[in-house]
Amino acid sequence: MTQHTFEREHKIHFSECDPAGIVFYPQYFVLFNDLIESWIDALLPEGYHGLIGARRVGMPTVHLEVDFKAISKMGEAVRLSLDVERLWQKSLTLAWACTGEDGVVRMAARQIIVTTSLDTHQSIAIPEDLRTVIEGAVAAARR
Amino acid sequence: MTQHTFEREHKIHFSECDPAGIVFYPQYFVLFNDLIESWIDALLPEGYHGLIGARRVGMPTVHLEVDFKAISKMGEAVRLSLDVERLWQKSLTLAWACTGEDGVVRMAARQIIVTTSLDTHQSIAIPEDLRTVIEGAVAAARR
Amino acid sequence: MTQHTFEREHKIHFSECDPAGIVFYPQYFVLFNDLIESWIDALLPEGYHGLIGARRVGMPTVHLEVDFKAISKMGEAVRLSLDVERLWQKSLTLAWACTGEDGVVRMAARQIIVTTSLDTHQSIAIPEDLRTVIEGAVAAARR
Amino acid sequence: MTQHTFEREHKIHFSECDPAGIVFYPQYFVLFNDLIESWIDALLPEGYHGLIGARRVGMPTVHLEVDFKAISKMGEAVRLSLDVERLWQKSLTLAWACTGEDGVVRMAARQIIVTTSLDTHQSIAIPEDLRTVIEGAVAAARR
Repeated sequence: MTQHTFEREHKIHFSECDPAGIVFYPQYFVLFNDLIESWIDALLPEGYHGLIGARRVGMPTVHLEVDFKAISKMGEAVRLSLDVERLWQKSLTLAWACTGEDGVVRMAARQIIVTTSLDTHQSIAIPEDLRTVIEGAVAAARR
Repeated sequence: MTQHTFEREHKIHFSECDPAGIVFYPQYFVLFNDLIESWIDALLPEGYHGLIGARRVGMPTVHLEVDFKAISKMGEAVRLSLDVERLWQKSLTLAWACTGEDGVVRMAARQIIVTTSLDTHQSIAIPEDLRTVIEGAVAAARR
Repeated sequence: MTQHTFEREHKIHFSECDPAGIVFYPQYFVLFNDLIESWIDALLPEGYHGLIGARRVGMPTVHLEVDFKAISKMGEAVRLSLDVERLWQKSLTLAWACTGEDGVVRMAARQIIVTTSLDTHQSIAIPEDLRTVIEGAVAAARR
Repeated sequence: MTQHTFEREHKIHFSECDPAGIVFYPQYFVLFNDLIESWIDALLPEGYHGLIGARRVGMPTVHLEVDFKAISKMGEAVRLSLDVERLWQKSLTLAWACTGEDGVVRMAARQIIVTTSLDTHQSIAIPEDLRTVIEGAVAAARR
């Protein structure tokens, strides 16, 4: 059976909700940005902040496709997951899902991230150590 | 010549930027949510808050496709625009663009919004008065 | 020895930082709002969302005094703590601290929260069950 | 008669409100951070982003005292104002107010900002050109 590459539980906070009492949709992008950060933290010894900070490697998003399928309400427990769909030379395609305890997918997305130099904001190849650990994470999830 | 259905100037705030000094991408969704709100405010006498509040009509996003083409830096002047691509019975397709003073498109998106009852969170037909003013806005932009 | 009434570990996220690479100060208020929510979740069976949602009891902030003493950088581990300083008839004084792994207090605050009816936005007495569990939490921390 | 040193009109956005339909209080700090940025933009040719960016001068907040006196609801028009209370060698005391169209003060605050080097995060004297234009703004408001 296939597992997700990375996932965590999350309880929807008051601070993430709008006047309709449901997740304000831009907050999903913050939640998944934090999820990707935690994933990189788990993969690299220097963490996401070391990659961005000392190594000056950026991971900006260049493309997003998102389906919002069901609402998430304040206080609900959800599972945030990510999977690596493709690993390219200079970019990465991730699939995200936010799933309720009832198994209903609340939102799902496909995101393309590129690696850049934060000094030039130009695209660069995915650093070799990062590529190696991502490949390892993908293989472990497939096992 | 065709104009945008609605647009406004915006200067990128410090509060919208990340440690790389560029717009933190989830902030674009806040900016465009505010833009749509200002657009509805300009169309309906009771405004977006009256539609959401007293009338209990929600306008959640169900689909988004986004391309981030160039970075926007702190302090830059940009133009945020929206156009109505399609007006359906119960939904609306909008095209967004964030364009720099140099004419370079920083990000562009297609968004599908549905109208819902905020009591049931079920889809409803676009209210007639809202449909009429949106059609008027589209016609005015084409003139 | 006195413990904090409630606390949790937190790693400073990229999404919480500004172009200087340090916590954007309004984010501290989001972090502590989330902390208070988690605390109420731990105290009441229906949780913070049940208090706000079904019971229509609001807990707005009426006063804040904050000292920012040292910066928190992206990726740093901090401890967020809260203590109950005073429990009044209709309000609650909390003391917050964000402390680094080095023991240095990054920010500390005193917050006064009132309980209100979310229907009238008027002040109400702290509900008895909430008062009882808060008193229990304070006593447990002093033990 | 005394005017405010700087002010602007603002309409409370949906994105700034919480599940109670009122401003989520951390958003006030974003609004006033944006206000201060616009004020510095109006005072210095290179703007706030030039001060922070090219000149590496930070303006972090070290102390805040805030009173939330009345709620601000989605869609309401408010006036955000700031006044310089004291101009010190290395710091600045500002007074903020958010006032409704009815003249009711929604929130008021006193903020102490220090000037720092963003390279060392140490306190520095307020740059002479910035001090001069702030003194000019204060004098103009008193006129």
